Parts: sequence; C-alpha cells; structure tokens
Amino acid sequence: MSDERGPLSALLSDEPRVVTAGVGLFADALAAQGITPVRTDWRPPAGAGDALDRIARDERVTDANATAVGRLQSARPHLVDVRLARDAIDGFEDGMLLHAGPPIEWADASGPLRGAIMGALLYEGWADEPEAAGAMVERGDVHLAPCHEHGAVGPMAGVVSPSMPVYVLHDAEHDVTAFCTQNEGLGKVLRYGAFGRQVIDRLHWMDRTLAPLTRTALRSHGPIDVRSLIVQALQMGDEGHNRNRAGSSLFVREIAGELVEVEAAARDIADVLRFINGNDHFFLNLVMPAAKVAADAARDIPGSTMVVAMARNGTEFGIQCSGTGDRWFTGPAGVPDGLFLSGYGPDDANPDIGDSTITETAGFGGFAMAAAPAIVRFVGGEVGDALRYTMSMYEITLAEHAAYQIPILGFRGTPVGIDATRVVRAGIVPAVNTGIAGREPGTGQVGAGLVEPPMGCFVAAARALADQVVMP
Amino acid sequence: MSDERGPLSALLSDEPRVVTAGVGLFADALAAQGITPVRTDWRPPAGAGDALDRIARDERVTDANATAVGRLQSARPHLVDVRLARDAIDGFEDGMLLHAGPPIEWADASGPLRGAIMGALLYEGWADEPEAAGAMVERGDVHLAPCHEHGAVGPMAGVVSPSMPVYVLHDAEHDVTAFCTQNEGLGKVLRYGAFGRQVIDRLHWMDRTLAPLTRTALRSHGPIDVRSLIVQALQMGDEGHNRNRAGSSLFVREIAGELVEVEAAARDIADVLRFINGNDHFFLNLVMPAAKVAADAARDIPGSTMVVAMARNGTEFGIQCSGTGDRWFTGPAGVPDGLFLSGYGPDDANPDIGDSTITETAGFGGFAMAAAPAIVRFVGGEVGDALRYTMSMYEITLAEHAAYQIPILGFRGTPVGIDATRVVRAGIVPAVNTGIAGREPGTGQVGAGLVEPPMGCFVAAARALADQVVMP
Repeated sequence: MSDERGPLSALLSDEPRVVTAGVGLFADALAAQGITPVRTDWRPPAGAGDALDRIARDERVTDANATAVGRLQSARPHLVDVRLARDAIDGFEDGMLLHAGPPIEWADASGPLRGAIMGALLYEGWADEPEAAGAMVERGDVHLAPCHEHGAVGPMAGVVSPSMPVYVLHDAEHDVTAFCTQNEGLGKVLRYGAFGRQVIDRLHWMDRTLAPLTRTALRSHGPIDVRSLIVQALQMGDEGHNRNRAGSSLFVREIAGELVEVEAAARDIADVLRFINGNDHFFLNLVMPAAKVAADAARDIPGSTMVVAMARNGTEFGIQCSGTGDRWFTGPAGVPDGLFLSGYGPDDANPDIGDSTITETAGFGGFAMAAAPAIVRFVGGEVGDALRYTMSMYEITLAEHAAYQIPILGFRGTPVGIDATRVVRAGIVPAVNTGIAGREPGTGQVGAGLVEPPMGCFVAAARALADQVVMP
Repeated sequence: MSDERGPLSALLSDEPRVVTAGVGLFADALAAQGITPVRTDWRPPAGAGDALDRIARDERVTDANATAVGRLQSARPHLVDVRLARDAIDGFEDGMLLHAGPPIEWADASGPLRGAIMGALLYEGWADEPEAAGAMVERGDVHLAPCHEHGAVGPMAGVVSPSMPVYVLHDAEHDVTAFCTQNEGLGKVLRYGAFGRQVIDRLHWMDRTLAPLTRTALRSHGPIDVRSLIVQALQMGDEGHNRNRAGSSLFVREIAGELVEVEAAARDIADVLRFINGNDHFFLNLVMPAAKVAADAARDIPGSTMVVAMARNGTEFGIQCSGTGDRWFTGPAGVPDGLFLSGYGPDDANPDIGDSTITETAGFGGFAMAAAPAIVRFVGGEVGDALRYTMSMYEITLAEHAAYQIPILGFRGTPVGIDATRVVRAGIVPAVNTGIAGREPGTGQVGAGLVEPPMGCFVAAARALADQVVMP
C-alpha cells in the first residue's frame, strides 16, 4: 500500500467492509448508494391517495402507458433539413413569435423572456430599439405562442421568429416532425435574454452563413440519425442537456466532409466549423427536437399517465401528459441553484426557463447524469449526486430505455417515461439540470445548475387523469 | 418501488446494507470493490526480497522517483509538425526500418511484424513482391531498429520506413521530441501485418494527401496541445489506448477550420475529413507520441525505479527504467485474450505486439479504464473489470496524475509512474489492453483484448536497480 492513497488508505487497508460479492455487483453498490432518494417532504393531499389507487389498479392505464413508453422509445428522429421557421412551421404567420414553456402573456413574462422577445423584434426589423419592441408586444401587435404548440422546442427563452432558420427532424416510424433553431453558443445570446448588437449580428450570420451551409451539406449527406448520435454521446460522458461536448464533436465529424464540398467561400466554411468547435452546446439544439419527436410520438394515448412535455417559460413550469391532450398543468418555476459565472450570484438568477426539459421527458438529460459525471463541474455538486439523480429517476419512470444506455451502470438503459402518478406517490420530482439566465433583460447567461420542478403540476395532472378513469 | 428494477429490486427494497455514509463516499465504495487486485500467484524469487527492501529504504531512490514521476507529469507535448520520417528522425538512413518493441532480428520476428516489414519494403519500392521483401531482410539488406531508440513509437508492428510521414510532437519544458506515423484505420492495415495492394495504396494516399493537408492545416493552426485533448478525452469515455473516439472527434473539431482553408481540392479535404471520421483510432497515433515525450522527459534519473518504456515486438515484451538508461529487460510476450472479429478466434492471435503500451507507461490506456467503461464492448469483460484494473494500478504506481482525471472516481488522478519494484513486491503486473494481430503475415487485425506482461522483466529490472544502490 503506497502513501498516496490519502483518505482512502484506511478503507483500503482494512478488509473491504462493504461488499462480499465480486465486481459483478458494482451496479448494485451504486444502486444501494444512489437510491438515497431526492424526496421532498411532500405528502399527497387528502383524497389524492384514492385517485392514485384507482389509477394504479386500472389495467387500461397500464396498457396505455406501455404503448406510450413504447412509442417514446421506438421513434428514430432524423435531421432531414434546415429551413426558415416561416417556411417550415405550419401557421407561423408574420407578427407571431414562439417561446418556451406553457402559454404566457407579456405582463407575466420574466426578464430573460422579455429580453429575448425584444431581441427577436430587433432581429426581424419589426422594431428599431428595445423599448419600442417591448411597447409593440405590450400593445398586442405581436402574438406569442408556445413552441410546443407548433411542433417546436426552444432552449431557455426559446424565442423563434419567422426569419430564424430551424432544424427539421422527422421520424418515419410515427410520422412526427419537430423543429428547433440552431445554437448560438454561450454567454450573451438571445436565448438567455441578451439582445445587444453582437447578439443580433450573430443571428444574422447564422441565417446568412451557418444555416445555408449546413442545409446544403445535409442535403448532400442525407438524413442524419440523431438518436444514434445520442446513443454514442451517452457513452462519451454527455447527458444531452447541459453536457453536449461529445455530441457536438460527433456532429462535426459526421457533417464536415459534406460541408467542405459545399460551393461556398472556404472562409465561410471554416467559420462554420470554428463556430461549432467553439460551442460545446451546439448539439443541444439537435437533441431537443429529437426528444420532441419521440415525446410527440407518444401523445394522445387515452388513459396514459406518461408525461410528454415538461417546459418552463421563466415564470411557470408546465407539463402535458399523453392521456390529457394539449392541456397544460402548471406551477411556479423554481430558481435554479448551481455554479455562477464570474461576477454573478444567486440573486441574479431568473426562475427556471426553457423547453430543454424535453430531454428529461425523453429519458436523458438530468435522467442520464450518471453517464456524465464530469457535468458536476458545470452544474455543481459531487459525482455521487450525478449517480443519485439517475438512480432516483428509475423510481418515477415506466421503463429503461432500449437504446440509451449508461456504461457505468453496466449498460443499464436510462430511466424513461415519467409517470405523473408515480411522481406523486413517490414524492420524487424529475431531476432537471439547466442553464441559469440573468433575471434582468439583456443580461444573458449567469450560470448553470439544478432545479426542482413544482410537485403541484404533477398532482393536478394525476387528478385529471384519475377523473378520466371510470371504474367498471 | 416499481417492478422494472429486476435483479436490483431486492437490494433496493432492503435497507442499504452496504454504505452507511452518503454519496460522498462513492469513490470509497468503488475502491473497496475495485481493490480486489489482479494478483498472479507470483512470489518474489529467493533473495529478491532483500534487494527490494534495500531499494525501499533508500531515500535516494525515493527522491529519484519523485523527480521522474514529476517530469512525466509536467511534460506538455504539442503537435508541431507532420514530416517525412527520413527528414524528421535523426540518423534514419535508407535501408533502415523502425519497428515496435525491444530489438529483434528477422529470424525471431512473428508473423505480423514480418508482414509489416514486407509491406514497408513494397511501399518504399525496395521490393516488388512480398517474398522478395522477406529475402532482402533475411540477407541483411535492411537494418531493423526499435522505434524507441529513435524517439519514435509505433502501434502494433510499429514499422516506420523513411518515406512515411510522421507526427512531430515537442515538449518545450523538457525539450523532448517524439514521432509517430499517422493512423491507417482498422482491419487490413500495415501495422497489423497486412500488406495487400489496398494497404499499400492507402499508405500512398496518406503520404500524398493526408499528410500534406494535415501539415499545412497544422502550420496555419499552430501547435496543438495534445495533453489538453487527452485530459478532455478522459472525461469523455476514452482511455486513450483502445478507445479514442472522443480524442479523434476533438482533433477533427480542432483542425477542421484550418483544413478547409488549405489550398487544395475540396474533394481531397473532404476525403481527409471522411477518413478521420471513419476511424475512431485516429487519435491513438497522437496520444502515443505524447506519452513518449512525457516518458522520455523522465529518463536517466539515477536511482529511479520508474518504468519509462514498455513495448512489445510480437515475440518479446520489454521495459526500460529511468535509472537504467537504454537497457531493455525482456520476457516472452503473452497472447492477448478478448473479443475476436468475425471469422477469427484465439488460435489466430499473435503474441502481444506494439509500442502502444507507452500509454500505460504515461498513466492512461489500461490504467485509465475506469474512465472508459464502454471499452469492455471492444476488449471484453465487464464494466466492473474496467474499474478493477484502474484501482489495482494505484498499487504499483508512484503518483496520481495531476492533469489526467477520472470523473467517476471523483476526479481522482490516474495512476501514473510504474515502479518496477512495486510491481514485484505487490505481484501485480501493469494492466494492458491491446489490439490483437493475426499470427499469419498478411492477416491484419483479428480482435482486441487484455494481456498480462511477463513478471520476469520487472524482476530483472528491480534486481539491476537494486545492484546500483550502494548502502551507506
């Protein structure tokens, strides 16, 4: 035994006091530790217990959930195109903006959402300066609608305006399509509520250079199987929400050959490659619509208590369930806690915002943190926390993902298919990691961390689902 | 508690019977399991105990080893150029070939080394067909020398001929330079002993297209910090020896922008990017010389028992230690056991071959398998084995690497600096994972797996080092 072992030396020099079995039980030991659940002091409200029991005993619910979680896993979203939002998204008329989360009015919008909306108006040329932009929306000259209601998802503020290019992802198995803008990078960017000149200029470079070049390269390459890239990335230390370094790298590798052969200035192609190389989150805007495709494939299964959307608009956190159609169940968005960028602290944090919780909805992101222990250097906490979050999520999900695996857990599938009734019964809310936006419009990103969804929206959803179940 | 938990359910529904502390002790639990050491039934030979005790008590040895392992860690190898071997490597005259491992003559060479040598002669145009090539070497018309004796390292057969392009890596801190050829991909490739037309054609494409383009891009980019890429790759599921998917991806990202701006046909640039994208082992030939630079920085510290080279020529496994200069200590190369490509089995496996064990020498590769649990799908075994190998290596090493960290072990530094005397005292040989070459010349790769180095060479080295220590 050497002297370098430090705090482990006593443990190692003693007989192992822990595990009598061999290394094969490694996953069990993880489980034994990881299971320390993320329980709140929540108890189901009086009467809710009956409703939950009614659902739990109903075979039609069990069957509906099996169908829903099956569809969620069998979707194979492919990146098929890059188009302007106005051309790609049905019913996207001028004067309309999409945003993250459940529906919200300007009066209730938080700083970063307001900032992003103002920035989008500047970008579109609908307004010349931020105040005028705000006034326009206040007057009702601009129509706000949730991304989720138009087949789209947007990280953080999630604002999509008609001239923004969007990725088009399609799943042939279930004939579902979803959309997402291209990722701008970190720091002062529109999705975090910044709207300065640099932000607007970057957006124009994206629609003039990044989008056309990636579109042309993609058409030459053919559809890209995003699920397959996520499978690989989960074996390379990504969890797909706040750690996308591997996915971004794999995407560059996949497309670089065709990108080079686009008939464009070498300088522009090089700029595109350097832009992606400078942004480890580039792949986020591809995994989000991939998750949206999978979740939408599982919508509208009567009786299913499975969550098909979790999204935040910076004021409220909302969910939709498969068995309850387009109805939102909402609660107040929590304020994330985590690591802050230099010069910022908890007082600067806006409440939770963004559609990126579609990743957790589809069985990765916070649910796959065990695959990405290095993420704790970005969102805070210890490596053990990353394992604990994943292990806890098996308590509230319907299945282990058939394709998304976690090597360190012996290639166990990720926990997938959040059952709203299990959330309520277990008192465990979904694990979510997230970027943190500054609460003042124009600030941009101030950090990244973890946040708890409000239990109330799961209770309301469970109640509504229970009401649907008529006992024989 | 849901029903999906399968074999873990009993464990989870019981009180955790294992760990009384919280998640903070995760690394300890790993240690407690992982420590089950990879001990052979080895016992030090009679008399060796005295010699080992003499070394263990000598402060000069301790100091020398601290210096050696410090230099090993402080080296910062940068990729600075791509040149032809004849121009880059001092004393590389015509008619000479470098090869992996300790010195060897043609008569003792195994199939894959013979195959690679014949292929190199065909590639150089020194011979027109394989039999003639073999006869030339047999006649002594070709001089064989170990890569290691010319500042180079080569994977598998490791054959370097004068016209092959090599990466040039340099460390300014210790003024050390090392060389390695560019990676050819997997399957039927020269380094695995294949020498068909396709192999030779690919080598010519590499010297005519791959090398000039990467050289020009690199000169435009400026030196690339390979250590920094390894640091990241270890957080992305690579261990740097047989899993280099992340490193290869990061390298593409790093160089792609400059590659695009090289004045060359778009088709050639695209071919280079697609070639790299098709080869997850591309980065191996950059980590090997990076490891060689670090190990060479630690050479020639009088009294140091630290290993500075481990290498195999397909017949013998050899080591060099810091305190014993250029002297090789050798033993018979073992036959790797692992997973075989379709159509091949254990009977087709050649004994262990290649300089790639320089990665383990420098504190990653097999020593960092805990960072790369997914590698068991390539080399065989269970995820627990990957953790066990890393934990065992802390028993025979001098330090935990200051830069190379393993997230799942709470960012613990990798075990680095093999102490030949600890190997002998602990009865634990270094963990090595490796590609497996077919034993017949011309076959190519047949699999990948794990192999045990022979204990004898560590005993011989320890004895030689003990003999140097004169007691006061």
